Amino acid sequence: MSQNNYAILMAGGIGSRFWPSSKASNPKQFLDILGVGETLFQTTFKRLSKLIPEDNILILTNAKYIHFIKDQVPAIKDEQIVAEPAMRNTAPSILLGALKIHKKDPKARIVVAPSDHWMKEQDRFLNSLEEAFDFVSSNEGIVTLGVEPTYPNTGYGYIEYQESDKSTVKSVLKFKEKPSLKKANSFIEAGNYVWNAGIFISTSEFLVSSFKEFQPEMYRLFHKGEDILNTADEEQFLEENYANASSISVDYAIMEKTDKAFVIPVDFPWNDLGTWTAVQGELAEDENQNTCINSRLIAGESENNIISTSGKIVVLKGLSDFIIVEDKDILMIVKKSEEQSIKEIREKVMEEYGKDLG
Amino acid sequence: MSQNNYAILMAGGIGSRFWPSSKASNPKQFLDILGVGETLFQTTFKRLSKLIPEDNILILTNAKYIHFIKDQVPAIKDEQIVAEPAMRNTAPSILLGALKIHKKDPKARIVVAPSDHWMKEQDRFLNSLEEAFDFVSSNEGIVTLGVEPTYPNTGYGYIEYQESDKSTVKSVLKFKEKPSLKKANSFIEAGNYVWNAGIFISTSEFLVSSFKEFQPEMYRLFHKGEDILNTADEEQFLEENYANASSISVDYAIMEKTDKAFVIPVDFPWNDLGTWTAVQGELAEDENQNTCINSRLIAGESENNIISTSGKIVVLKGLSDFIIVEDKDILMIVKKSEEQSIKEIREKVMEEYGKDLG
Repeated sequence: MSQNNYAILMAGGIGSRFWPSSKASNPKQFLDILGVGETLFQTTFKRLSKLIPEDNILILTNAKYIHFIKDQVPAIKDEQIVAEPAMRNTAPSILLGALKIHKKDPKARIVVAPSDHWMKEQDRFLNSLEEAFDFVSSNEGIVTLGVEPTYPNTGYGYIEYQESDKSTVKSVLKFKEKPSLKKANSFIEAGNYVWNAGIFISTSEFLVSSFKEFQPEMYRLFHKGEDILNTADEEQFLEENYANASSISVDYAIMEKTDKAFVIPVDFPWNDLGTWTAVQGELAEDENQNTCINSRLIAGESENNIISTSGKIVVLKGLSDFIIVEDKDILMIVKKSEEQSIKEIREKVMEEYGKDLG
Repeated sequence: MSQNNYAILMAGGIGSRFWPSSKASNPKQFLDILGVGETLFQTTFKRLSKLIPEDNILILTNAKYIHFIKDQVPAIKDEQIVAEPAMRNTAPSILLGALKIHKKDPKARIVVAPSDHWMKEQDRFLNSLEEAFDFVSSNEGIVTLGVEPTYPNTGYGYIEYQESDKSTVKSVLKFKEKPSLKKANSFIEAGNYVWNAGIFISTSEFLVSSFKEFQPEMYRLFHKGEDILNTADEEQFLEENYANASSISVDYAIMEKTDKAFVIPVDFPWNDLGTWTAVQGELAEDENQNTCINSRLIAGESENNIISTSGKIVVLKGLSDFIIVEDKDILMIVKKSEEQSIKEIREKVMEEYGKDLG
């Protein structure tokens, strides 16, 4: 494993569409959402450490989640954890991570990855990751890993690549926002579209220079602290400056602007676990399409529900197509077709009964 | 208050249609089902003690419930509690109670009453009870309190009385089983039918003689222990004999057989709290007909649900006409129209996950 391999692991999100199991005080990445015996964060860290020295994995998170990280992966050292002093979307945190790594190792190759996604057959992922590391060692650019779509999902962004490109690493034509069902169908039909899994690989040098080119203001903001990064004064510097960065996504900040974006289409089973119904897709269902997490079910005339409780016996009679989630404070029963209103329901509960419930 | 007034309070039932809140290990009468701050047993005891000396209230129950009785009404003495050594329906326990009271006070007047019903405007109940006590002091017979029906309930038994009878205490024509909706409608229309609330009044003498006449075998079984009743040997006698009594209801054993059954129609609001929907009838509903017990509700497009939890915030979206009950072990979500299957569901849960859950 190359000592120049690094990772920026994103672990600051809230997972609010996964409420009430995922809360700002205990978000999705630190939960064993699928009931497999380890949290998504633990699984992701373990997976990355197959190709990246553990000490080279930088965790970008929120100060209040540091205890989860230390509890769940005790091997992680303090200097590997960067607490964002303010919520500022992905671009500022990735620039910061890239600068820190680049200062330490100007020959660094970095994978940026979310810590709250699920994938199977990790060897395929690792093979593609290795190909991407190799590619960026000898080519300028940013390589995304794009997942071969298995159906016209309208909840994911898509990446369109050069159809004629027969190499493994293909030139990106365009990043596409979450499409309508009609558009998603046309993407699948066309064949040269993959799901944007939010995983990308580049060198620290190219990442930093891309920010310098496309986000000069943000670049200057952090660059002025270059001497301070990775020192004891870093925290103070970030306290004073971080909140002044624009709150924009890395996709918008550099990916969609560079003409050196590439994609490796991969076909491992992958799921962003963005919603309850997304989770159901990855879990076993009984003969009536009911999916149980941490629950024992007795059901009659009840189909296609997803059920997650604090370990209860769940009795259903005459209930179909619902999301049923119970934790110590909340019992939520929401029709699947209304799943998109969970964010709004969460806001309402926080407003009426306290922010700690969101 | 007359020192000859006595009560036999029935507190041995399980309330299985009220599962999972009511369990064999913690049945309905010992719960604060309506969230009013006291249990049904406490409320019933308090109500009866307005007309009956506390020491004259005999509690018929199951050995495993004695601790509830002592905890909830510490004034009750050991000798007031009779633990039935076996489940034998109401007739044997009422005969036993009547014999015990008659031995102590041959001039006793007794009201037999369930401990798990709800009523409002107790003064009307107490007035009618007093009228009944007066009546049986000077007339042989059994006087039931029948509740003026407010709608054609098919879950209650009815009592038909002599229409022409203009006295307060009317002769019973017939006890009617739970009727079909069509029959219930005809009862309401006829006007001379009341709900059988399971409350009746007689003298100990008349009760005992009625059993002697209509249930000679049961009478002999207990009468042979007359010298032993109310002594230290009573428990031993009951252990040896009680289980030999026929398991029949008091209605079947004597009420339907005697020609000296009477009824006082009363119009206090009353509910046997026999089912979850029955409970809903007595509790406040929000503007969408949702009823909450020990829960805080946030609902959208959700109507006419009854919700009872261990204190949770309940979020509903797109769910109507359901019974939702949560306790430390179980989460039950059952369509109201399937309420009658709760007994069966309870059996299934006990079978699969342990008898203590029923």
